[in-house]
Amino acid sequence: MIRTGLIAEVRAVVGEERQRGKKIAIVPTMGYLHRGHLSLVEEAKRDHAFVVMSIFVNPLQFGPQEDFGRYPRDLERDSALAAEAGVDLLFNPPLEEMYPEPMLTLVEVKEIDSVLCGRSRPGHFRGVATVVTKLFNIVQPDLAYFGQKDYQQVQIIKRMVRDLNMPLDVRTVAIARAEDGLALSSRNVFLSPQQRAEAVVLNRSLEEGAAAIRGGERDARTLEELIRTRINAESSGEIDYVEVRGAADLKEVTEIEGPVVIAVAVRFGATRLIDNKVIEVGTDV
Amino acid sequence: MIRTGLIAEVRAVVGEERQRGKKIAIVPTMGYLHRGHLSLVEEAKRDHAFVVMSIFVNPLQFGPQEDFGRYPRDLERDSALAAEAGVDLLFNPPLEEMYPEPMLTLVEVKEIDSVLCGRSRPGHFRGVATVVTKLFNIVQPDLAYFGQKDYQQVQIIKRMVRDLNMPLDVRTVAIARAEDGLALSSRNVFLSPQQRAEAVVLNRSLEEGAAAIRGGERDARTLEELIRTRINAESSGEIDYVEVRGAADLKEVTEIEGPVVIAVAVRFGATRLIDNKVIEVGTDV
Repeated sequence: MIRTGLIAEVRAVVGEERQRGKKIAIVPTMGYLHRGHLSLVEEAKRDHAFVVMSIFVNPLQFGPQEDFGRYPRDLERDSALAAEAGVDLLFNPPLEEMYPEPMLTLVEVKEIDSVLCGRSRPGHFRGVATVVTKLFNIVQPDLAYFGQKDYQQVQIIKRMVRDLNMPLDVRTVAIARAEDGLALSSRNVFLSPQQRAEAVVLNRSLEEGAAAIRGGERDARTLEELIRTRINAESSGEIDYVEVRGAADLKEVTEIEGPVVIAVAVRFGATRLIDNKVIEVGTDV
Repeated sequence: MIRTGLIAEVRAVVGEERQRGKKIAIVPTMGYLHRGHLSLVEEAKRDHAFVVMSIFVNPLQFGPQEDFGRYPRDLERDSALAAEAGVDLLFNPPLEEMYPEPMLTLVEVKEIDSVLCGRSRPGHFRGVATVVTKLFNIVQPDLAYFGQKDYQQVQIIKRMVRDLNMPLDVRTVAIARAEDGLALSSRNVFLSPQQRAEAVVLNRSLEEGAAAIRGGERDARTLEELIRTRINAESSGEIDYVEVRGAADLKEVTEIEGPVVIAVAVRFGATRLIDNKVIEVGTDV
């Protein structure tokens, strides 16, 4: 595995692989890798691509009150895990390589970016869309892999790619979960043992919501209330949102008639966790 | 010359040329070609590139009160001129090829976009940056050519390319002028004979400003006043702005100490004309 923090080196290496006819894949991450990240690499390997993983904790997507400073970092461990997973090129640029001058240019995906996490994290998705555009332009990948855990992020990236005619395919990989169902997240490390135990309620309440839909429930507000009640009953977590929305466009839903996503965000102390479940409801179900 | 309105066809043709080792150039235009546009093509030919010219009157960069509807169009004439100039591929997409669904994604270059033309045309440069990003992603050029007449546009594109790590070089080509000095513009066709005669005052007043700087004038406000006075004295045009700004960053300048651009915008009836002159002032002059 080659490891570099230099854009010019990434371009040189990737350019050679492209010339050899290799497909190029990017797996953008903020590091502190877990099995979820590694499953993205596996998927890219299955697609026979030259796999570039970026590790960059992007200040542009953190609000002033957010956890940029304390976001977990462990580059040596990440590097070993990435190499083991088959990453071909690890790109871990220093701040000044990504932002050598004040960043005047921003990429924004309106509407989809202002609901769910966008409401409590204003500017977050603009920061994500902007840095992902930079990474795409640096690596010029054919394929880009994102985890479904950040469901809204994936929808925003997909829409951005379509709207701006970016020449690549976005692939989504299912949420990796701990044995008890908790969605893997680099931020889980911040949970106290009790918070960690309580946090399983995110997945459990989503499962309960899914079961209710399978049982015939079609009212979005009733479902949200069901999930909220469960989270409040079984944890000390403070709910940021519990919402049922259209799976493709994240638009508001009242009566469930097509594919929906149930998305939740809950704070445990200073740690904010998210999870979601996509449920395919056909009109004939 | 190949002519197409289809993104897929552009990609196929350009992809082949790239494989053959050709450099790819893009000359983005809104059509109604004049010698200024053709000089961009000449420059690209000199750089031995495969030249893609786009002709697309982009609604995203016109305000609701602006001249999108009446912007001059003559695709057959443009096509003949482009072929003659050596354009290899003419891309003239219909609206629905460029904007098949509501455009949620916008690219914005802050600060530089809100001065000069940005003040009287809010959203204009966001529309430009967004469509140029789309064109770049469609064509994936190595080189992009822009005329210096739209000086602010060039600075915005250059900054966007740097900020977003777009893998291409932006080249600027000097303003093409009529014999009497008027900067060529597709909008000149709208001028009445008298307005056309009066419009030479833009270039003449810029020349006068340049001469004053050569003569030792260093006060930006005095220079602007000199130019304003001349325009008002010799034309019926209504001044939108006359400004001396830093040539690289378009920042305000009081005392001229380095390279500056003198930029003017003047309305003749419904027709808004712009012109500019870059003046290199060394600190030791």
